[in-house]
Amino acid sequence: MSLFRLIPDKHDVLQDQNIPEEKYALRRKIYIIIFQSSTPAGKAFDVGLFILIIANIILLILESVASLAARYHELFRFLNTFFMIVFTVEYLLRLYCVKKPKVYAKSFYGIVDLLSVIPPYAEFFLPNWHMLMIIRSFRLLRVFRIFRMVRFLDESRYMVLSLVRSFNKILVFLFFIVLLTVFLGTLMYVLEYEHNPGFHSIPQSIYWAIVTITTVGYGDIAPITAVGKIVASFIMILGYAIIAVPTGIMSASLVSKYREMDNDDKTCPNCKNKNHASDALFCKKCGTKLA
Amino acid sequence: MSLFRLIPDKHDVLQDQNIPEEKYALRRKIYIIIFQSSTPAGKAFDVGLFILIIANIILLILESVASLAARYHELFRFLNTFFMIVFTVEYLLRLYCVKKPKVYAKSFYGIVDLLSVIPPYAEFFLPNWHMLMIIRSFRLLRVFRIFRMVRFLDESRYMVLSLVRSFNKILVFLFFIVLLTVFLGTLMYVLEYEHNPGFHSIPQSIYWAIVTITTVGYGDIAPITAVGKIVASFIMILGYAIIAVPTGIMSASLVSKYREMDNDDKTCPNCKNKNHASDALFCKKCGTKLA
Amino acid sequence: MSLFRLIPDKHDVLQDQNIPEEKYALRRKIYIIIFQSSTPAGKAFDVGLFILIIANIILLILESVASLAARYHELFRFLNTFFMIVFTVEYLLRLYCVKKPKVYAKSFYGIVDLLSVIPPYAEFFLPNWHMLMIIRSFRLLRVFRIFRMVRFLDESRYMVLSLVRSFNKILVFLFFIVLLTVFLGTLMYVLEYEHNPGFHSIPQSIYWAIVTITTVGYGDIAPITAVGKIVASFIMILGYAIIAVPTGIMSASLVSKYREMDNDDKTCPNCKNKNHASDALFCKKCGTKLA
Amino acid sequence: MSLFRLIPDKHDVLQDQNIPEEKYALRRKIYIIIFQSSTPAGKAFDVGLFILIIANIILLILESVASLAARYHELFRFLNTFFMIVFTVEYLLRLYCVKKPKVYAKSFYGIVDLLSVIPPYAEFFLPNWHMLMIIRSFRLLRVFRIFRMVRFLDESRYMVLSLVRSFNKILVFLFFIVLLTVFLGTLMYVLEYEHNPGFHSIPQSIYWAIVTITTVGYGDIAPITAVGKIVASFIMILGYAIIAVPTGIMSASLVSKYREMDNDDKTCPNCKNKNHASDALFCKKCGTKLA
Repeated sequence: MSLFRLIPDKHDVLQDQNIPEEKYALRRKIYIIIFQSSTPAGKAFDVGLFILIIANIILLILESVASLAARYHELFRFLNTFFMIVFTVEYLLRLYCVKKPKVYAKSFYGIVDLLSVIPPYAEFFLPNWHMLMIIRSFRLLRVFRIFRMVRFLDESRYMVLSLVRSFNKILVFLFFIVLLTVFLGTLMYVLEYEHNPGFHSIPQSIYWAIVTITTVGYGDIAPITAVGKIVASFIMILGYAIIAVPTGIMSASLVSKYREMDNDDKTCPNCKNKNHASDALFCKKCGTKLA
Repeated sequence: MSLFRLIPDKHDVLQDQNIPEEKYALRRKIYIIIFQSSTPAGKAFDVGLFILIIANIILLILESVASLAARYHELFRFLNTFFMIVFTVEYLLRLYCVKKPKVYAKSFYGIVDLLSVIPPYAEFFLPNWHMLMIIRSFRLLRVFRIFRMVRFLDESRYMVLSLVRSFNKILVFLFFIVLLTVFLGTLMYVLEYEHNPGFHSIPQSIYWAIVTITTVGYGDIAPITAVGKIVASFIMILGYAIIAVPTGIMSASLVSKYREMDNDDKTCPNCKNKNHASDALFCKKCGTKLA
Repeated sequence: MSLFRLIPDKHDVLQDQNIPEEKYALRRKIYIIIFQSSTPAGKAFDVGLFILIIANIILLILESVASLAARYHELFRFLNTFFMIVFTVEYLLRLYCVKKPKVYAKSFYGIVDLLSVIPPYAEFFLPNWHMLMIIRSFRLLRVFRIFRMVRFLDESRYMVLSLVRSFNKILVFLFFIVLLTVFLGTLMYVLEYEHNPGFHSIPQSIYWAIVTITTVGYGDIAPITAVGKIVASFIMILGYAIIAVPTGIMSASLVSKYREMDNDDKTCPNCKNKNHASDALFCKKCGTKLA
Repeated sequence: MSLFRLIPDKHDVLQDQNIPEEKYALRRKIYIIIFQSSTPAGKAFDVGLFILIIANIILLILESVASLAARYHELFRFLNTFFMIVFTVEYLLRLYCVKKPKVYAKSFYGIVDLLSVIPPYAEFFLPNWHMLMIIRSFRLLRVFRIFRMVRFLDESRYMVLSLVRSFNKILVFLFFIVLLTVFLGTLMYVLEYEHNPGFHSIPQSIYWAIVTITTVGYGDIAPITAVGKIVASFIMILGYAIIAVPTGIMSASLVSKYREMDNDDKTCPNCKNKNHASDALFCKKCGTKLA
C-alpha cells in the first residue's frame, strides 16, 4: 500500500530513553500505530482513518440536503453518534500516547482534531441554527488530515515542489491580477454606474472584473453601454492572454524539474554527487570519471 | 490510407494449423477482412465500417429532434432497419470467423458490438419510452469502436503516451480539486444559505464551486452576500491560477517526450558523447563519423 | 516598414521576355506596385490598401447599428460609393497588369477580390433585405487579404510553423473532443430530457456539452437533476483538465522550435548545413570543424 | 525588507558638485529618503507610502458603497482630508528636493502624482456628480506607483522579461483574435439577426464572439437558430484550442529563459564544451577543471 508513506508527525517524542521502557510499552505501541505508517498496523490505521474521514465528510454533505435529512433522520443520528465516539477515542488516544500532550494539543493538527471532534457535543448547547451549521462544518477540517496523508505521494511531490518553487512568482502574479481588477473595476464603475444597476459600487465592479478576467463569466452582471462593452471585450481578451503567465511559469518550472529528474541516476564514485546531466562523462564537482 | 493501421483484435485465433486449411478458407478470408487492416479488403472494410458507425450515430442524434422525427419518420425507420441488418450481419460474421466465439462474445468489444445491435430489436418489447431511449443510446457505444480505430494513429500515440505518463499526477490533481471544492462549497454554504436559495444544500454549493473553479460559470447560482462574493472572487482567481498545474504537467511531459524523440541514442565511438541530433552523421564534439 | 514583407502572389507572370519590353512598361510598373512590396511605392500601396480595408470593415460594422445608420445615412452612402470606386479600380488594375487575367480571376484571391467588390452593385438589384446583408458582408472577405499581408511577419511565422507542425495532433484532439461531447451529450439527454426542457434533443444536449467542456458556460441550459449535476461536474473537471492537452502540444512544439532557433547561427563552411546544436563544434553532416 | 529594492527615479539630479554642498544638505536628505530605497529611512518611506496608497485605494472603493458612504460619512471625510494633506505634502517635497522640478512635474510619475492629488480640491469646484466620480477615481492612478515599486522584484523580473520577449508575438496573436472575432461576429450576425434580438448589430455580435472565444460566456446573448448553435460550437472549440497559442509562447519563452539561467557560459579550456550546469566545477566531457 504505497499510498500511505506518511512522514511521522512532529510529536514522535517517546524516544526519551531515561524512562523505563516497560512503563511506556502500551503508549509506544499505540503511538507507533497512530503516528507511524511503516508497520502493517500503522498502515491499516491510516487506511481505516482515511475511509472514516471520507465517510464522515460524505455524511456531513448529505445531512445538508433537506429531503434526505427528513427521510434518513434516524440513520444520520446513529452515524453521527458512531463517528462522534470513534473520533473522540482517536483524539484521546493521540493525547495519551504522545510524550507532551500539551504540545500536541496546541499544534495545528491537534487543534484540527479537537475542533472536528466538538460539533456533536456542541449540538446540545447551541439552539441557534446558523452557529450550529458553522460548528458542524468544523468536521470538514479533517480534510487537512487527508491532505497531510496524501501530500507525500510521489505524484504530488513534484507538483508541490514545483508549486513551492513557483510560489513567489505566482504570488506576484496574483497581486498583479488584484491591482489590475481594482483598476479595471473602477474604470467600469465610472463608465457604467449611471446606466447599469449591476455596477452600483466599486466593490461590485471589481467583483465583475474578477468574474470576467478569470473567464468565469456568470452573466449576473454584464455591461450595457457601448464603451463598457468595448472595455469589457478588452478585459476578456486580456484575461484570455494572461492566463498564459502562470501556465508558462508552471510549465517552465516543471520542465526544468523533469530535466533534473532525468539526471538523477548517475552518482560520482568519488564525491557521491548525484546531480549530473544525462550526457556527463566526468563528475562536475571533482572531475572523477563516472561509471 | 494511413488512417487505419489497426492493431488486430485479440481474437486472431484462426492460426490453428491442425485443422485442414480448406475447411477454414472462407472463415479465414472473412477473418482477415474484418479483423486485419493490412490487406486492401481489410482497409476497405474498416473505412466502410467507420462511415457506417458515424452515419448511425448521426441518425441517432437526428431522431431525437422532435420536428425531424415527425417529418422524416419513414426515412428514419428505413435507415434504422438498414443499420439493424448491416450491424447484425457484421456481429454474426465476427462470431462466425473467430476461433473461439465465446471468448469474443465475452470480450469488451464483443459486448459493445452485442449491446449496440440490440436496440432495434428491443423496440418491439419495450413499451416504456424512457427505457427505450436508454436502450437506443446503446448504439452510441460504437463510439468505442471508433476510438479503437483511431487510437493507434501516430498523432494520437504521443498524446496517449503523455497522458499515460502523467495519469497518476493528473489523478492526484483531480483528487485535490475534489477535496478543495468540497471544502470551498461547504464554506460558501455556511456563508450564503440563509440569504440565497441557490445555496440550499452542501451538494448544490459543491456543484457551484466546481462550476466556478473550472471557470465554466453558468450563472444559475451566484453569491449575493458581500462575504460570499469575496470568497467567490478568491475561488475564481484560484481556479484561474491552478489550471496552470495540469497544463504544466502535460507540457513538461510532452517536452521531455519530444526531447527523447530527438535523441536517437547515438554514441560517438571516439569521445563517447551521446547527445546528438537524430539526423547527425558526425559527432558534434570531435567530428568522428557516427556508426 | 518591416510589417509588409509580402511574398509575391502567384501571378507574377510578366517576366515573359519574348514580348518587347516597352509594350509592357506601364503594366509592369503597376504590377510591381500592386503585387510586390520591396519597392517604396509597393510598400506605400500595401500600407494604403491595409488602411482602406480596415476602414471599409469598420464602415460595414457601423452600418449595421440601426441608430448610426439612421443618423449618418448620407455619410455612409458617400463612403460606400468611395470604397466602391477605389476597390473596383484596384480590381481592374490587378486584372490589367497580370499576364494571365483569367488565371488571376479564378485564383482564391481573385475570387475574394471580386466578391468583395460586388456588394454595392448588388444593392441595385436585390430588394430582399436578408440576401442583401449576406452580400454586403462579402466585403468582410477582404480580411483574407489582411491575413495574407501579415502572415509572413517574423512574429507570426513561428506561430504558424508551430501550428502547422502540431496541426495533425490538434486535429486528432478536436476529433476526440467531438466524439466525447457526442457521447456526454447523449448521456445527459437520457438523464435530463424528462425533467428539463433545456435538454429537449440530443443535438441541443451536445451543444450544451460543448458549452460546458470548453468552460464557456452560458447558463441558458443547465442540468437540474441530481445525477445530471454530478455528470455535469465531471464534464467540467474533464474540460478543465484536458485543456492541458492542446496547450501541452503547443508548448512542447514551440519549446523544440525555440531550441532549433537557438541553433540557427552556425553554418558549416563545407556543406552549408545550418541546423547545429548550440554546443556543436563539428558539423553533424560532414564532420568539418565549425567556425 | 527585500520587497522594495527600487531602482531610483530618473530625477536623481542632485549630484551637481559645483553647488556648495551645505546649501543642499536638507534637500539631498529628503531626496535620498524619497527617491532612494537603499537607506533604512528610504526603505521605511517606501513601505509607509505603499501602505498609505493601498489604504487610500481601499477608502476610494468603500466610499462608492452607498450604505457605507451614508453610515461612515464623517470618518470618510476625515480620512480623505488626512490623505489629501499627506499626499500634497509628499508631492511638494518631491518638487522641492529634485534639481529640476519642471522635469519631474512633466514626467509620467510627476503627472500621476499631481493628478492623484487633485481630487479632494476639485470637490469644491465641481457640482456635477459624474465628473466628480471621474476626478475622484484619479486617486487610483497611484496604482502605477505601486507597479513601479514592485516591478523590480526578482520574482516579477523574469515574468516581465518573458513578457517583453514575447510581446510582439502576443500582439500578433491578439490582432489575429480581433480579426477572427470580427469575421465570426459578422457571420453570426447574418445567421441570427432576423430571429434573435441579441444579435441586433455587428458590433454586438462581435462582442458576443469575444465573450465566446475567450470562454467567458456571460449568457446574456446566446444563439437560438440551429445553424447559429453549430457555428457557436465551432467558435467555442476554436477558443478552447487556440488558448494554447499564447500559453505555448509564454511557456517556451520561460523554458528558454530558465535554460539560459542554468547555463552560466562556462567553456571548458580543454575540449571547448560549453554546455555545463551552473554549479559545475569540472568539464562533464573531459574532466578538466573549469575556470
